[in-house]
Amino acid sequence: MTMTGKSRGSYAKTAGRRREILEASIEVFANHGFRNGSLREIAERVGMSQAGLLHHFSNKNELLAGVLELRDERSVALVPLDETPGIETIRGMVRAAEYNAEFAPGLVELHCVLSAEATAPEHPAHQYFVDRYTWVVSLMSEAFTNAQAAGQLREGVDPRSAAQSLIALSDGLQVQWLLAPDTLDMAEELRRYLRPLFTIDF
Amino acid sequence: MTMTGKSRGSYAKTAGRRREILEASIEVFANHGFRNGSLREIAERVGMSQAGLLHHFSNKNELLAGVLELRDERSVALVPLDETPGIETIRGMVRAAEYNAEFAPGLVELHCVLSAEATAPEHPAHQYFVDRYTWVVSLMSEAFTNAQAAGQLREGVDPRSAAQSLIALSDGLQVQWLLAPDTLDMAEELRRYLRPLFTIDF
Repeated sequence: MTMTGKSRGSYAKTAGRRREILEASIEVFANHGFRNGSLREIAERVGMSQAGLLHHFSNKNELLAGVLELRDERSVALVPLDETPGIETIRGMVRAAEYNAEFAPGLVELHCVLSAEATAPEHPAHQYFVDRYTWVVSLMSEAFTNAQAAGQLREGVDPRSAAQSLIALSDGLQVQWLLAPDTLDMAEELRRYLRPLFTIDF
Repeated sequence: MTMTGKSRGSYAKTAGRRREILEASIEVFANHGFRNGSLREIAERVGMSQAGLLHHFSNKNELLAGVLELRDERSVALVPLDETPGIETIRGMVRAAEYNAEFAPGLVELHCVLSAEATAPEHPAHQYFVDRYTWVVSLMSEAFTNAQAAGQLREGVDPRSAAQSLIALSDGLQVQWLLAPDTLDMAEELRRYLRPLFTIDF
């Protein structure tokens, strides 16, 4: 396929524009939630008209899908997914909490607000979050199970329950951290939770 | 003060009406969040006009204040607040999780959605949630500290950190439970978290 310099340039420009719109959407959805976040405000933030924005994403649900995809890309970047789940997957979750607190507070807010909104069955992201939690719980359960097989888990620790609680703790800490960032260190609290469950250091 | 039968009756009727409106508001805010929940839908649920509703609560923020007050009343009913905080306060939190799962799923949803929405500083319930978390964390920290003084806490457990994590775990479990109620038992997960922290049974 031959591409002229111009079309390559346009493609890059379009991709860049889409990215800008998604970044603005993350901020707006994180601040106002999905249902109350307005296309108008997103368009304003990137200096476009609403019509111009709708040229890139044909409706708000498409924008939501794009935002969730971008967010997944980033949030799993610190969790190794290319190897058998195990202790490093669990450590990856702690690293992600550390990273998000420092560099991606907007993603923390987005997750917190959207996951809560989406507990309502009629929310457009409901199924996404049901599936996402099923996947994360199963990934983390496997990680704990493999750590158990490797003799790294203390006796009596149930892998699935530990996985669900680790994820819950991480979600819940976000609420307190968003309300009062100076009152707690999310990664440190996760490590404190994990230490007594393992025979190895955390 | 003398009250005629009629005015006493009216008063009871007004109080009953206010209560009905608050119950409907809990459902609507739990489903749609505060910002997206509409007065129209609340009015419809209680078979009133919006004007009629505004006779009882002059605006949406007043309704929110009423809902939060009612919710506080209920959620602390199971946590003993009339004695020195200690092991029974912590047990009360587990009992509350048990009770809410069985009898008050609407309150769980309300808390989950409103607390997430209210992490945004401009949300009308932002200060309420900042204050509420400050209060709950301090109450629970005191309970853990007193348990420690009574020799009920294992060595190395930090009371404040344990308090923050217990509250976070409880909040985070709600998200998973609302998304997929059959996948976990919130009270049992809280007990599993607490057991290794204590020298006494949970």
